[in-house]
Amino acid sequence: VSGVVTFLSDYGLTDEFVGVCHGVMRRRCPTLEIIDITHGVPRGDVRAGALMLRAALPYMPDAVHLAVVDPGVGGPRRALALRVREGAHVLVGPDNGLLIAAADALGGVVEAHDIGRSAERSPQVSPTFHGRDVFAPVAAALACGTPLNEVGEPVAPDSLTPLELPTARTDGDVLTAHVLAIDSYGNVSLDAEPAELTGAVLVTLAGREHRGTAALTFSDVGDGELLVYEDSRGALALAVNRGSAAALLGVFPGDQLTVRRC
Amino acid sequence: VSGVVTFLSDYGLTDEFVGVCHGVMRRRCPTLEIIDITHGVPRGDVRAGALMLRAALPYMPDAVHLAVVDPGVGGPRRALALRVREGAHVLVGPDNGLLIAAADALGGVVEAHDIGRSAERSPQVSPTFHGRDVFAPVAAALACGTPLNEVGEPVAPDSLTPLELPTARTDGDVLTAHVLAIDSYGNVSLDAEPAELTGAVLVTLAGREHRGTAALTFSDVGDGELLVYEDSRGALALAVNRGSAAALLGVFPGDQLTVRRC
Amino acid sequence: VSGVVTFLSDYGLTDEFVGVCHGVMRRRCPTLEIIDITHGVPRGDVRAGALMLRAALPYMPDAVHLAVVDPGVGGPRRALALRVREGAHVLVGPDNGLLIAAADALGGVVEAHDIGRSAERSPQVSPTFHGRDVFAPVAAALACGTPLNEVGEPVAPDSLTPLELPTARTDGDVLTAHVLAIDSYGNVSLDAEPAELTGAVLVTLAGREHRGTAALTFSDVGDGELLVYEDSRGALALAVNRGSAAALLGVFPGDQLTVRRC
Repeated sequence: VSGVVTFLSDYGLTDEFVGVCHGVMRRRCPTLEIIDITHGVPRGDVRAGALMLRAALPYMPDAVHLAVVDPGVGGPRRALALRVREGAHVLVGPDNGLLIAAADALGGVVEAHDIGRSAERSPQVSPTFHGRDVFAPVAAALACGTPLNEVGEPVAPDSLTPLELPTARTDGDVLTAHVLAIDSYGNVSLDAEPAELTGAVLVTLAGREHRGTAALTFSDVGDGELLVYEDSRGALALAVNRGSAAALLGVFPGDQLTVRRC
Repeated sequence: VSGVVTFLSDYGLTDEFVGVCHGVMRRRCPTLEIIDITHGVPRGDVRAGALMLRAALPYMPDAVHLAVVDPGVGGPRRALALRVREGAHVLVGPDNGLLIAAADALGGVVEAHDIGRSAERSPQVSPTFHGRDVFAPVAAALACGTPLNEVGEPVAPDSLTPLELPTARTDGDVLTAHVLAIDSYGNVSLDAEPAELTGAVLVTLAGREHRGTAALTFSDVGDGELLVYEDSRGALALAVNRGSAAALLGVFPGDQLTVRRC
Repeated sequence: VSGVVTFLSDYGLTDEFVGVCHGVMRRRCPTLEIIDITHGVPRGDVRAGALMLRAALPYMPDAVHLAVVDPGVGGPRRALALRVREGAHVLVGPDNGLLIAAADALGGVVEAHDIGRSAERSPQVSPTFHGRDVFAPVAAALACGTPLNEVGEPVAPDSLTPLELPTARTDGDVLTAHVLAIDSYGNVSLDAEPAELTGAVLVTLAGREHRGTAALTFSDVGDGELLVYEDSRGALALAVNRGSAAALLGVFPGDQLTVRRC
């Protein structure tokens, strides 16, 4: 742990919540550096947050990774600090599946602690803002050198809440996949590995067919045209050159569609 | 003053205004650290900004606190730097009520200076961007050690523009309160201390009644149900578990409503 | 070059893209400081990004200025690192006109390198995320002291893609100008130098006339009234006191209008 905290949440940037967590961390550990991954996770959408965290952490320096998407705040869900196999990364956040995909991308959880009653919490803990009063103080303490085994009680790694994700399948020529995430450009990330697609492709969704082209990048097709490509996360994805695939197709996260050559 | 500047404004993040102020401050004081509290204050809404600042500053380290929500920029309103009783905090911003609630939360103003003609201003002052040309340079100078009495002319603390806020009242069982702030989750903060409420509660607004439950946190009630609770700022508040109380009730800041047991 | 990177893009803040670029840069150069200018450039709008960059860079410390608005990512457009005449500034971004106006504001390009095949790139380069895999790593290497002539191949400064901008003209009393940019307050920046306007002014757009007043700042006119003024970028601009000139006039970037005394 190197004195860096990364921070992802669904707090948004219109309120003071993110700034308050920064302030709490700087007070606890004045020398730490904070990298904001994003605070634009859709409100309460644990799966979307988990996928963003998984996409981001492989590019981060060794750090304490603070992640808060926590619709069950103040209820019985546990609060966690996790050590993973690779690097010197520690993940801090609620036990609702948010951390687990990112932890797997870093080699899996090798040590887990319940920090819900940590001595590092703030003296007063609001039942509705554990980011400020539990997670941020513990993350800052870890970043400033407090050992992991002093911030909580050990729990079994195999007791952690899993993240449920859909599964793509292939039947002959037809790939049936699901929309995992849509970025703010309208690019649509699927739950499938990049297929060995070339040339013309047919995307079928809710009974409607859309013609596209397998390509490497947006400008390989004409303006407004659909492409199927490997996105920067390494997933099979749909985009429209200088447009929005999400808008063209009318898709939302979780939707099922098929992709095949044509 | 420790070399930290916190920064709150209504500049938003879609233009370059916040980045420009960061640049100005880094040029004046290369070693300073900046904590962005939020730049999402509704445009020109001094009261909303004042309430966010008041909520945030108690969690900040000793710092120069730069706050700019300034619809009267370039007009006759004064520009201020204020020292407060607690800690080593200095507040910098316009004399329109924006700073005063936060200053009171930190023990009250003990020293005030008018920085409108400060020697620390930029050589050229745009009449429409005092954040860049007056407030940021003065904040950076203070963070880098310039004494408060060198950045402006002393003014009487009791001459500062106050912040007007509504007042809740209790008549028997009925609390009449006002909407002070609505966060981006749709949680509704009132101008009342947490009442000793338990069990079922009736919220009445514009002749419509809404049943809710006094609770500690969101998940204490069912999905989509209304709760009355003490929010993380310590105020009485309304929320909907995994929903928006503001949307359910149709309320806006300033609205009056009543809360009573039922 | 001083160890500071400024960063402007159209990535937005709802996805993890900006955070990932921060992580990549911190891994390559742990001591660098990052100033986010804005990530709210309209998607793919090179001209809007170029104008924001030009407005911001004169207020920045000596730095590597990373700018990514890159609809042609992965296609034949070159990737650039540019040294300018003034200060110790280096600009990094795509060769699509994005950098050129800002470079001109800093004295013009004196040295240009194509970094599209730089040894500083990430080992794997996604065809759709050169911000992460090309531009950020090169910017971080420059900020950490790698000489400019080691990050790419020299190219002729006069071969860079220019930025196309409209041109205002004056016929007698009538200024014909174009909307260059609209900020998030709805203030409308024109492609004209501040005229020597005083008193009542007539703005004509799409056959409709709007009365305004030449003024120094917003509060010089009544609430909801139109003013013509020199904005904080030094351009002739239109605003509405405590309102939105863009909404009042119904204008968009590129629109043509006339301004004259009346």
